[in-house]
Amino acid sequence: MTKDDEMQCSGLWPPAATPFNGDGSVDWSAFLLHCRSLLDDGADGLAMLGTTSEANSLTLDERREAIDTLLGDGVAPSRVLPGTGACAVGDAVVLSRHATRAGCAGVLLLPPFFYKGVPDDGLFDYVSQVIDGVGDGALRVYLYHIPQMAGVGWSLDLIDRLRREYPDIVVGLKDSSGDWKNTRAILERFPGFAVFPASESMMSDAIPRGAAGCISASANVNAGGIAALIAALRAGGDATGLQESASQVRASVSSFPLVPAVKAILARRYGDPGWQRVRPPLRPLDEAAVDALLASPGVGALAQ
Amino acid sequence: MTKDDEMQCSGLWPPAATPFNGDGSVDWSAFLLHCRSLLDDGADGLAMLGTTSEANSLTLDERREAIDTLLGDGVAPSRVLPGTGACAVGDAVVLSRHATRAGCAGVLLLPPFFYKGVPDDGLFDYVSQVIDGVGDGALRVYLYHIPQMAGVGWSLDLIDRLRREYPDIVVGLKDSSGDWKNTRAILERFPGFAVFPASESMMSDAIPRGAAGCISASANVNAGGIAALIAALRAGGDATGLQESASQVRASVSSFPLVPAVKAILARRYGDPGWQRVRPPLRPLDEAAVDALLASPGVGALAQ
Repeated sequence: MTKDDEMQCSGLWPPAATPFNGDGSVDWSAFLLHCRSLLDDGADGLAMLGTTSEANSLTLDERREAIDTLLGDGVAPSRVLPGTGACAVGDAVVLSRHATRAGCAGVLLLPPFFYKGVPDDGLFDYVSQVIDGVGDGALRVYLYHIPQMAGVGWSLDLIDRLRREYPDIVVGLKDSSGDWKNTRAILERFPGFAVFPASESMMSDAIPRGAAGCISASANVNAGGIAALIAALRAGGDATGLQESASQVRASVSSFPLVPAVKAILARRYGDPGWQRVRPPLRPLDEAAVDALLASPGVGALAQ
Repeated sequence: MTKDDEMQCSGLWPPAATPFNGDGSVDWSAFLLHCRSLLDDGADGLAMLGTTSEANSLTLDERREAIDTLLGDGVAPSRVLPGTGACAVGDAVVLSRHATRAGCAGVLLLPPFFYKGVPDDGLFDYVSQVIDGVGDGALRVYLYHIPQMAGVGWSLDLIDRLRREYPDIVVGLKDSSGDWKNTRAILERFPGFAVFPASESMMSDAIPRGAAGCISASANVNAGGIAALIAALRAGGDATGLQESASQVRASVSSFPLVPAVKAILARRYGDPGWQRVRPPLRPLDEAAVDALLASPGVGALAQ
């Protein structure tokens, strides 16, 4: 991936968290405020409707509304990369088509994640049916690899097959495995493929090897720090200090349940306790955990 | 569970498989034919929209339509137990309310299955929100425990808490873990709870210990054999031969990918090759596997 290729996403794309009202509905105004703030802080785009966004805890209508709300507020569709994967390929088609017709930069596609031990051929069928169902050459698919949640992942051989079958459509991957060996193997095997590690801790290793950027949960609270790190690495200067700072924040936040921790920091930053709400099966951090989190290295300043 | 308790499901409730047309849509007429055939063969009811039904590969509308199609054909709602679990609690509420208002015997509730390592408190919240969202005292919840697929399960302590909080609503559980120790522990700890092992191989152990019955994938192809086994065990006679026959079929079918295997047998039985179709990420058995399956002990006769 290069900056010259306007067809591909690159840089920092935070998976924007989703705030809820007291009645459990989505708080769209707080959502917009947060998305705008992320872009203002240096995010290149928004990888919304991911795991940190609790996308699978939203209904199909809510997921569509999230896209429409963001675009309706004037965010350029070229800066929006929504998660559209679903267990039912029919749902993935509906959402992916909606995003594509709206002009979104692409879609982040989870594999169908209920059945386990499924063959690569079945996952290939799923992607094929999504692509055929959308039926729009403007579709860009970024595979979403998060085997520790999905229980199903995109193998290197399957990535290879998909890229060969759909070279203009299957253009990238978010690697949330947390396994640097896997990320590195993908970077080495598929030059030009837009690979996004899900942890900023890998940036100093990944960017020089051609990674497209970063889609990280903790980018919700440290967009500025990560954007600066990526910029420094691209410029080829010494990014040691920026990497250490970003990695410290990541380590602090990820020593708590990640989504509730991100939301606890945002609640403090925005002065809006409602940000702590999550949907089941997640639970908010209790008070003691919030105190410990806010006292963790690097976190306090981000909660201001 | 006793037969006197008309509020609870008991006996054999096959998780009816879902046939697809060549264009990928659900073949409702073949579905109805199969459901009627299962009831004719001795099933007490239909635990439709489960794992074997590929329910999570269906859209919400298709799941609603499956319930409506069955009831519209005149099947008594008291013989229908649909799976209504979903990752989004809002979807689980919509489906559970639909089933409850239609008079269904209850709902089989998967836990939300995307996030892993979630706390029991979060799963309790999910069930609470489903029950509150349905808001109908007629709701009966059967917990669906299939940790090898969902990656999330119902622990004994959580079952206990749910039963105490909702004694008239949370009335049973399907145990698809395949772990007899878990099934036995639930039977021993919760007398009167309607427990359905997901394998007929456990019937001789489970029925005398108070199990309500059986909800098994292979009941799609061997309803008669399993119904006879349950009846014999309830009558207290010697069920050794019936158990051996049923266990043999189960062993044969489950040595292949279970859903495609069940569908391959049904394709042969109904003379309808379309029955072999599955939705991604599943794949149909190839010809050699179908031949091997049909030649397996106990299977040939069921394909007639």
